Amino acid sequence: MMLSALDLARRIDAGELTPAKVVDLCAAAIAACEPEVGAFVTLDIEGARRRAQAESAILSASPLRGLAVGIKDIFDTADFPTEYGSPIYRGHRPAADAAVVAMTRRAGGLVLGKTVTTAFAHMAPAATRNPVNPEHTPGGSSSGSAAAVAAGMVPVALGTQTGGSVIRPAAFCGVAGFKPSYKLIPTIGVKCFSWHLDTVGLFAASVPDLAFAAAAITQRDLRVDRHAAGAPRIGVVRFLWAEASAAMQNAVESAAVAAGRAGAHVTDVTLPPIVEEAWRIHPTIQDYEAWRALAFEYDHHRDAIPAVTRELLDAAAAITADDYDAARRTTRLARRALADLMRDHDVLLTPSAPGAAPRGLGSTGAATFNRLWTLMGTPTVNVPGLVDRDGLPLGVQVIGRFGRDQAALAAAAFVEAAVARRAPALAHST
Amino acid sequence: MMLSALDLARRIDAGELTPAKVVDLCAAAIAACEPEVGAFVTLDIEGARRRAQAESAILSASPLRGLAVGIKDIFDTADFPTEYGSPIYRGHRPAADAAVVAMTRRAGGLVLGKTVTTAFAHMAPAATRNPVNPEHTPGGSSSGSAAAVAAGMVPVALGTQTGGSVIRPAAFCGVAGFKPSYKLIPTIGVKCFSWHLDTVGLFAASVPDLAFAAAAITQRDLRVDRHAAGAPRIGVVRFLWAEASAAMQNAVESAAVAAGRAGAHVTDVTLPPIVEEAWRIHPTIQDYEAWRALAFEYDHHRDAIPAVTRELLDAAAAITADDYDAARRTTRLARRALADLMRDHDVLLTPSAPGAAPRGLGSTGAATFNRLWTLMGTPTVNVPGLVDRDGLPLGVQVIGRFGRDQAALAAAAFVEAAVARRAPALAHST
Repeated sequence: MMLSALDLARRIDAGELTPAKVVDLCAAAIAACEPEVGAFVTLDIEGARRRAQAESAILSASPLRGLAVGIKDIFDTADFPTEYGSPIYRGHRPAADAAVVAMTRRAGGLVLGKTVTTAFAHMAPAATRNPVNPEHTPGGSSSGSAAAVAAGMVPVALGTQTGGSVIRPAAFCGVAGFKPSYKLIPTIGVKCFSWHLDTVGLFAASVPDLAFAAAAITQRDLRVDRHAAGAPRIGVVRFLWAEASAAMQNAVESAAVAAGRAGAHVTDVTLPPIVEEAWRIHPTIQDYEAWRALAFEYDHHRDAIPAVTRELLDAAAAITADDYDAARRTTRLARRALADLMRDHDVLLTPSAPGAAPRGLGSTGAATFNRLWTLMGTPTVNVPGLVDRDGLPLGVQVIGRFGRDQAALAAAAFVEAAVARRAPALAHST
Repeated sequence: MMLSALDLARRIDAGELTPAKVVDLCAAAIAACEPEVGAFVTLDIEGARRRAQAESAILSASPLRGLAVGIKDIFDTADFPTEYGSPIYRGHRPAADAAVVAMTRRAGGLVLGKTVTTAFAHMAPAATRNPVNPEHTPGGSSSGSAAAVAAGMVPVALGTQTGGSVIRPAAFCGVAGFKPSYKLIPTIGVKCFSWHLDTVGLFAASVPDLAFAAAAITQRDLRVDRHAAGAPRIGVVRFLWAEASAAMQNAVESAAVAAGRAGAHVTDVTLPPIVEEAWRIHPTIQDYEAWRALAFEYDHHRDAIPAVTRELLDAAAAITADDYDAARRTTRLARRALADLMRDHDVLLTPSAPGAAPRGLGSTGAATFNRLWTLMGTPTVNVPGLVDRDGLPLGVQVIGRFGRDQAALAAAAFVEAAVARRAPALAHST
């Protein structure tokens, strides 16, 4: 049972609930689920409860209403150890909070704990299990944040995405996930992998919950609950379609049909070649920057870096400035081409991942359907609600125009509502 | 007597000098000048000497030839305390080096010490004095890096610019200063003031020295010494001309005349209104971001923040997302208009500062002639060589096209050489 941030906030507004009671709800779910799920690296339930009690009135009136928040352990926190998923940083205590952590506290969020991240938010899997089925990966790299929300252990969690690290785990765990426009939320105090790609994102139970939390933290008008979300113009993108499972293809088609029946104008879209080319060069930018962003760790602690990341860095040393500059030019051209394309579409619709969460914890899955949108800097939302025959979530991805984050969230909420009305009939059809 | 990085490197290549001997040269200048100048917050001459001796052959063959480097104390260093100019961070030891510090070490640079920064690289003056005349400010916020190079205490130093924190101190101290294109050098591990503005830059004795060091650190083809620097097309910009002293106006005119006589095509340029508007909205972007980037310090240590910075932050809390987004849109339009304008000019020429370094240490001077170019993200170079009647340096600024850093440096070297041939006659003419 997930905790809806918006519902909790309404009940706090109505005097039916207090921030301390929300901590109790989280604590109960943590007691029940955390031993199996392993979403947190550090928890401070007592500290959160004490603050919730001591500052109840102030917190209840704050934008986030004193809601408990989980923070991926890639964000610096002055009052929790911050290890970036790596033994290199065992016991590390940053001197300051990351900007968005401070913003979350300013908005009245209570940091309940730090959530599991893969090492340096890259590919080597961590130990978190998928709350929907613990035999399956929760996805990565924001494994703990997605799982914590899915298991009802927190209503809101923060993550980051460089390839697909917000949208993919959200899809695998069946929660709403939001990667805002590039730099809508500052990455200051977030351990860097790639400075042109790293993007702070959020997890919540549903799209309106996401929008509520994102609005509170950013002080922006992102909420969808009080906007009349008109029917959006949706372009269905089947780029890399053969990489999607039959169940995932069906999920996207089903979501498109549901949205169409709910009044959306749905058309097929083919990406311009330069945008497809941008998908191909994402690793050039990511790896060139990682070679520099992680220079200290590589030069001083190479053996403590997971093999998959170490091998990436080994190879990245050979990427030239010319390769990188060419990839940056491709990115600029692709962003322009995408902006032109999106004049006729409010959002695009495509898979959030190749399929449901793979079985086993040996891999966090692939960022195939995510990395293009990270590179384009466009807001994207994982819309939950569909499942496969085994009951595993199938997330579909709604992609908005750069800087139009509210519109992207509104369209995602529209799709989510349309899917929810039809989900049982659509879910098991493959 | 400044240390030319390029000359030192050539002498090391010729076997006339070793990295350890360079440390000795630095140590001698530090012994002579540092008590009066106060450029460093921390020094480790013995550590640098030991490494220079132990790894002499490897360092001598490295891109930076084992040259000693000064690092502004706004960059994280794992082996030196890093205090960001603030008592809040007294004794702070980061867990890792900033990316560019690691890149500098990879290139074979020896970190000799941390240089004085104003608190959080903002306006409150620090104690460093101008080596040319200790009664005058060295400028800020990269006060120590500019002064250390000017006094011959290091051949290369790193700084950052958010308003005018590289170009202005370079101008005041009479050294070459380079603010590269936005994000040419990563800001990872650099204390953030404004993430859309903070730019890592360098100081050296002359423009070819700068280009040598920047090429070594970035692994980019930025060197000007081996390029036949053709005569550039120079546009003289008199935006905010009334803010420049008569001596500074004369310095720019003199540099333009000298460059023209050396073969440059020199014309007058008027900035489009949208670019002038961008100058006006720079503080909106800077302050909105500083309110978030320094959220932890403001929320936990407000009283320990210098008054000028605290007041900026007090006011910044009221800047709305709409104001900020409008300023970002203006920036985008201005960048496009500037790129169009620069199709006909390789570089622009304008003052580096309103005049020579002001007398007294009560202010680091104004960023009037710098903040536009920081916001535009274009490479800019302070060209030294001219002085006023009192012998105080008058820096002129060469501004290149975004991403054309080598061309900007080459044009700056051209202007520098032209000025040097004529400087004595031009210097005292006002």
